[in-house]
Amino acid sequence: MPAVQIYDTTLRDGTQSEGFSLSGHSKIRLAQRLDDLGVAFIEGGWPGSNPEDAEFFERARDIEWKNALITAFGSTCRVKGGPEEDANIRALLDARTQVCTIFGKTWTLHVTDVLLTTLDDNLRIIEQSVAYLRAAGRRVIYDAEHFFDGYRADPLYALATLQAAIRGGAETVVLCDTNGGSMPWEVEKTIGEMKESIAHPFGIHTHNDGDCAVINALTAVRLGAVQVQGTINGVGERCGNANLCSVMANLELKMGRRCLPEGRLQKLYELSHVVDEVANITPNDHLPYVGRSAFAHKGGVHVAAMRRSEQSYQHVAPERVGNRMRVVVSALSGRANILSKAEEHGVDVASVDDVVGVLNEVKELEARGFSFEAAEASVAMMLKRQQPDYAAPFELVDFLVNVEHRQGRGIFAEAMVKVKVKGEVLHTAAEGNGPVNALDIALRKALLGHYPEIASFHLADYKVRILDGRDGTQAITRVLIDTRSADRVWSTVGASANIIEASWQALVDAVEYGLSVAQ
Amino acid sequence: MPAVQIYDTTLRDGTQSEGFSLSGHSKIRLAQRLDDLGVAFIEGGWPGSNPEDAEFFERARDIEWKNALITAFGSTCRVKGGPEEDANIRALLDARTQVCTIFGKTWTLHVTDVLLTTLDDNLRIIEQSVAYLRAAGRRVIYDAEHFFDGYRADPLYALATLQAAIRGGAETVVLCDTNGGSMPWEVEKTIGEMKESIAHPFGIHTHNDGDCAVINALTAVRLGAVQVQGTINGVGERCGNANLCSVMANLELKMGRRCLPEGRLQKLYELSHVVDEVANITPNDHLPYVGRSAFAHKGGVHVAAMRRSEQSYQHVAPERVGNRMRVVVSALSGRANILSKAEEHGVDVASVDDVVGVLNEVKELEARGFSFEAAEASVAMMLKRQQPDYAAPFELVDFLVNVEHRQGRGIFAEAMVKVKVKGEVLHTAAEGNGPVNALDIALRKALLGHYPEIASFHLADYKVRILDGRDGTQAITRVLIDTRSADRVWSTVGASANIIEASWQALVDAVEYGLSVAQ
Repeated sequence: MPAVQIYDTTLRDGTQSEGFSLSGHSKIRLAQRLDDLGVAFIEGGWPGSNPEDAEFFERARDIEWKNALITAFGSTCRVKGGPEEDANIRALLDARTQVCTIFGKTWTLHVTDVLLTTLDDNLRIIEQSVAYLRAAGRRVIYDAEHFFDGYRADPLYALATLQAAIRGGAETVVLCDTNGGSMPWEVEKTIGEMKESIAHPFGIHTHNDGDCAVINALTAVRLGAVQVQGTINGVGERCGNANLCSVMANLELKMGRRCLPEGRLQKLYELSHVVDEVANITPNDHLPYVGRSAFAHKGGVHVAAMRRSEQSYQHVAPERVGNRMRVVVSALSGRANILSKAEEHGVDVASVDDVVGVLNEVKELEARGFSFEAAEASVAMMLKRQQPDYAAPFELVDFLVNVEHRQGRGIFAEAMVKVKVKGEVLHTAAEGNGPVNALDIALRKALLGHYPEIASFHLADYKVRILDGRDGTQAITRVLIDTRSADRVWSTVGASANIIEASWQALVDAVEYGLSVAQ
Repeated sequence: MPAVQIYDTTLRDGTQSEGFSLSGHSKIRLAQRLDDLGVAFIEGGWPGSNPEDAEFFERARDIEWKNALITAFGSTCRVKGGPEEDANIRALLDARTQVCTIFGKTWTLHVTDVLLTTLDDNLRIIEQSVAYLRAAGRRVIYDAEHFFDGYRADPLYALATLQAAIRGGAETVVLCDTNGGSMPWEVEKTIGEMKESIAHPFGIHTHNDGDCAVINALTAVRLGAVQVQGTINGVGERCGNANLCSVMANLELKMGRRCLPEGRLQKLYELSHVVDEVANITPNDHLPYVGRSAFAHKGGVHVAAMRRSEQSYQHVAPERVGNRMRVVVSALSGRANILSKAEEHGVDVASVDDVVGVLNEVKELEARGFSFEAAEASVAMMLKRQQPDYAAPFELVDFLVNVEHRQGRGIFAEAMVKVKVKGEVLHTAAEGNGPVNALDIALRKALLGHYPEIASFHLADYKVRILDGRDGTQAITRVLIDTRSADRVWSTVGASANIIEASWQALVDAVEYGLSVAQ
């Protein structure tokens, strides 16, 4: 069976997502990662719509792409003037890509009520726009916007728009479920009927408003679609586009259809997380295949069963998509969860009492607002502190943080820290761009003489959440800190009614864990 | 066509989700909300597994449920001793619900490698366990764990487990895709074959590891399933269970199948958000139907089209699930987005220059780390401040925040604020449980004399995010504050390298917006 073309539109349709935006520089970075993965097409943007996208195409021309073709996106020309006078078509040509993708109207409602033109004129501009780009030497992909809604409203007209694009010279016509509300049985029926009158390579572009974007795309592939358009992690307007991570994994692992070069599927997890990181959004831990929790086991019963047979609670081996099996420690944990963690961190557990002790500490602190599910280094520190020969690298005496705004002088943050290291009292002060940063710097200053390895740690992320008090607890602030050194990243947690105290707790665990691993 | 039974397991299978946990009190609150919505069954927990679940059932007995039946969940009895000696079965009976749901093993691998028993003994304990509960007067639902994987491995044995449960007296046998990796065409084939030998009411319970939980559930309904098990928002172990919000909306709006009492579907949005709120997790804005972004439009082209025809970019009317259409303001916005916002907040826009001014301010501040997509009150304040007759209710002169930890005395937070109100300088100090709380209290103290309405505002949520600096900007802290008064909630944003300054900006917008609306 032929390979399925993956057409990524994270950089274009993805940025229509509320909360997801990319600078021109970020787009280039992500395009290179997508190219490494091995997708067939990368839609770089809509050069006619904003200057950043035009900049992307300029920079993209100087890069040697290994697998992917960069495509420029735009719409059919306006009704008046034809393609040769159209600024949008001009911008597409100026992007100087081998491939252009243009969308046109399929749905009669849109032709008359949004485009404000006639059905015949719409057919004319579709054919003319495609033909004009072909004459200029471009390969053309035609996106039939609202194909499924349009087909429901007027099937013959919907097919006529595809035929216009094919007459113009489009190599692929892409059936778009723009409003995302089609059910797979509708997709199946519509494509089946379309194929009775049109024998031309077709693709699929779906949105997730009915929670069926992925299955609608796969349904189209089963009916012969040669191309799937979607985005990494399913970002996109409203409920998002088809999540290509799920599409690609399902195609290769469940349907036996190749869509990436041999061995590349293992890069999926990494790519998914790079996209979130570059766009600076919180990853959805529960995404199929690529979520941090996708192969995580929390219930004591499941953890015990997984220790007997790995197949028992996972549908595929996580390594095939670059993910891994994890055991989660929480108040719902049993001893098996704590034992797995101890093995993972290379901590010898002296006795059952130690395991029960840590389990009880986890339960008690979670009741006070801590959460250890994402703070494995804090759990590791609890285990390490249980060991009889463990000595803490430092002990806190006092700290003070001050933030001051004075009219005319602006804002300052300062911290003072007093700690004891191996019997010596160290007293330092530091400025920072904020109170936690000032505390962090002052603490490092105090410890650096004794522990030079601390210079390689840096605070990679800092997350704060207020836990609401309706269940009778006080309003608690939970702080999660990610710390990075040259070769690892670790996460720690603190919780308190006072954000500075919570930050301090997470900071202390972070430094102590880093030092204990470096030794 | 008969109504489909909705069987909610948010309180049980949902709490297997990493990051999702509920106190006993929260479970009661959510069960009442689920009952209001009108689901048929609410699985309250696994009374044999932990004391909190047992507590839930005790409290549930005193409540008069309007629509739902509460069910208790457990497993078949152990191989040795039979049901009458089994602590787990005992706990099920002690829960004193009309309905019990028990799960048993379908997959030969699990029988031999996890349960460590024989295939015959497994059939025996299924039948005995169901029969024992029936004899004690309970209605019994039987969950066939790993049904689809088990059927693939040994179809005849998988069917034999269902028959054992039916012989025992189970009213419904539920086909579980426990590992969540089945594709809908496999579900279709397996159910088709099962129906050739078993004519008994069946249900469906799916997980989302292959991104097909919702469609697998709907596929089963199309083949005659009478019951769908799932969770609100799709919470659940690994990638979650079938999202009942999508299932219910699709059943009623796309398939014409009733599953809730008349008119209740409009409560869907609210329930989805209550679940996140009670469990204290960040809502997924992009969830189909119930996400905050599900009917949000960001791209200038879409916003302009929506102003012409509402159908143009939405698959159903958002009001049908209690959601609403929103226009998002961001750096990608056009003038139409700002105009929509001004209308929404009742601000008269004096001139095109005002709109362009606000648009430019949004773009400039977003480049510095602000994000207005979730901070509509900050956008409203920008619009209001453009109005020639607008006078700010107060002006900042100085502030100071101090957090101090002293050995033996613990931790303190204090703030000092100096503001000018109507020419008068007000200088106040306050303690708080953290620095932002101290600032908030000091500011209110200063303003209360002039603006007594401020007493009704309270800080409902406070979110912080560090924006990473890899795109050449400095590391910026973004603060989002939700403020609540008696009749509304509003959100404001601040961004700075200093968390206290960012918090102060969001706090000032919050108070200023609240005062401007109250006037």
